[in-house]
Amino acid sequence: MAKASEGMNYAPKGKPNLVVKKGEFSFAALALDHGHIYGMCNGLTEAGAELKWVYDPDPKKVKAFLEKFPQAKKARSEEEILNDRDVKLIAAAAVPSERSALGIKVMTAGKDYFTDKTPLISLEQLRAVKQAVKKTGKKYMCYFSERLHVESAVFAGELIAEGAIGKVIQVMGMGPHRMGDPKSRPDWFFKREKYGGILCDIGSHQIEQVLFYSGCKDAKVLHSKVANYNHPKYPELEDFGDASLLGDNGATHYFRVDWFTPDGLQNWGDGRSFIVGTEGFIEQRKYLNLGIKNSGGDHLFLANKKGETYYQLAGKVGFPYFGKLILDCINRTENAMTQEHCFKAAELCVRAQMKAVKIK
Amino acid sequence: MAKASEGMNYAPKGKPNLVVKKGEFSFAALALDHGHIYGMCNGLTEAGAELKWVYDPDPKKVKAFLEKFPQAKKARSEEEILNDRDVKLIAAAAVPSERSALGIKVMTAGKDYFTDKTPLISLEQLRAVKQAVKKTGKKYMCYFSERLHVESAVFAGELIAEGAIGKVIQVMGMGPHRMGDPKSRPDWFFKREKYGGILCDIGSHQIEQVLFYSGCKDAKVLHSKVANYNHPKYPELEDFGDASLLGDNGATHYFRVDWFTPDGLQNWGDGRSFIVGTEGFIEQRKYLNLGIKNSGGDHLFLANKKGETYYQLAGKVGFPYFGKLILDCINRTENAMTQEHCFKAAELCVRAQMKAVKIK
Repeated sequence: MAKASEGMNYAPKGKPNLVVKKGEFSFAALALDHGHIYGMCNGLTEAGAELKWVYDPDPKKVKAFLEKFPQAKKARSEEEILNDRDVKLIAAAAVPSERSALGIKVMTAGKDYFTDKTPLISLEQLRAVKQAVKKTGKKYMCYFSERLHVESAVFAGELIAEGAIGKVIQVMGMGPHRMGDPKSRPDWFFKREKYGGILCDIGSHQIEQVLFYSGCKDAKVLHSKVANYNHPKYPELEDFGDASLLGDNGATHYFRVDWFTPDGLQNWGDGRSFIVGTEGFIEQRKYLNLGIKNSGGDHLFLANKKGETYYQLAGKVGFPYFGKLILDCINRTENAMTQEHCFKAAELCVRAQMKAVKIK
Repeated sequence: MAKASEGMNYAPKGKPNLVVKKGEFSFAALALDHGHIYGMCNGLTEAGAELKWVYDPDPKKVKAFLEKFPQAKKARSEEEILNDRDVKLIAAAAVPSERSALGIKVMTAGKDYFTDKTPLISLEQLRAVKQAVKKTGKKYMCYFSERLHVESAVFAGELIAEGAIGKVIQVMGMGPHRMGDPKSRPDWFFKREKYGGILCDIGSHQIEQVLFYSGCKDAKVLHSKVANYNHPKYPELEDFGDASLLGDNGATHYFRVDWFTPDGLQNWGDGRSFIVGTEGFIEQRKYLNLGIKNSGGDHLFLANKKGETYYQLAGKVGFPYFGKLILDCINRTENAMTQEHCFKAAELCVRAQMKAVKIK
């Protein structure tokens, strides 16, 4: 079993901030392949959504899930959930290669879909999903947790919107992750056609961020690469990847993702984000403040003409995404995230992966 | 006049660590166009070299220099210095486009040459300099100050050599610089054919570091770009640049350089270096620890299986490069830096610049 000190089971808890009344909005959890499902359900329930059902073919996964979310009923099948007209939204963390098919099934059943990242892993899947959204009028939303479920990341967006660093020039992200014991990982984790490649998988967090922070609508992948530097036992694993993108508004993006978090690090990865603007810059140390014991997460540093400001944001910002998503589902608005933005992030992940030079 | 809070006049002082006796090794300073000449002369004199002469056609620059280095004699011409057989080494900080011609003149006069970075700005210059080195047997060395004259950077090299992070996979560098008042900058600073482009100029620090830290002998520029985002008054200025390199040993490199240090930052730039290895990683915060008042420089963070360690290194490591350079000049050895390494860094800077996509 993977430990909480691995990113896979990072499931932030926030303060409840209810946007709906009891009984007003029900959702279900389907496909528990990735531990992110816990964070997804935390976010939705804290915003007032009622977790009505859970289903996964693996009873062990369901049992573990029910320990955290005893309010959910164990469904006998996927269909039992999909046929329940009371359920408005399905949260799902399927194996990456299966996410789009499940989403199409969910939307065809008349429900909105909230998938773990990465939303999908090929352009064919993207085309199919876009068609299904058009046909059903339903939402295909994605849990880009490294922005949506990190308080410093939410606050960074607010600072940029206020003009604290001027116009954004570059977004740089570092997304190192801890492998932990490879035996604790499911089989699909090591199969390229299942997880989709490192840029598509954990790189998706990064790519979504450049679109959001720089405010561009589209971007071009200028360069990308992947490697397996140090895991010869798992030839299909990519333990390193990076990419450079250029936004349609001229802002650029660089990110690195890897599976090299050392055992001695206090958390699963020293995730950073550096956002450079014409009038200042922001650094986020998302999950720890390196070299400082038990530092907790959500450290944000702002430098501009006024000086340097250090914000410790854990517990102070909250996660507005989830409440907005619920209201978007009810009101058919797009305040949490537009469908276009989600699809563009998905597309760019796939393109970065397709373009990647394999260097090792 | 540029302020000390700009990188141009960053001239570290270390503890004296004499490698030669009085009268054993004389050098001279020629061409005071870049403020780095002060750091170069500090390093050499602290290691025991005697600064015998100074010359620059601009008497104001000479006067300012003599205030810091009163031991130097004001020469009447370049030739007076070049004809002095007692002078073994010339330290020079000419305009980048003039560095190679001056070096060839110096070496032809039978002296070793120590130029400010970037060593040169075109492949033609590189060819000419290589020929001159071959013909004269003299050295063409370069002041890559962001590694050689930063104690955390020296210490990082020692940690890597000891195996503290395993095999180096990626070196990532961030070299933001403060523009300050553009009027305080010399004309050549804004002329592309003089300063050579941002990747060639301040990018040279970064490129030299990947060769050193990853231990590769050669590298390929996979991608690079430059922009002028926010200085329309100076159309030939590049205020942003980045590049991705691949070393011949499989290690990769990414760096960003820019002229966007905000006015409120406590020092001229938040220079960082992240070195990822198979067994851990190192972060350097070279000139300040962001968000902490009067933090000083030389902060190094090591994470590996043993845990996280924070080193405050200012005043604790010293700058061994300068003593080694003096001894290399005397003994005709290559312990400070090989000629091959210096030329390879020079070549890659030029190639990164030549390959750069102009995005704005």
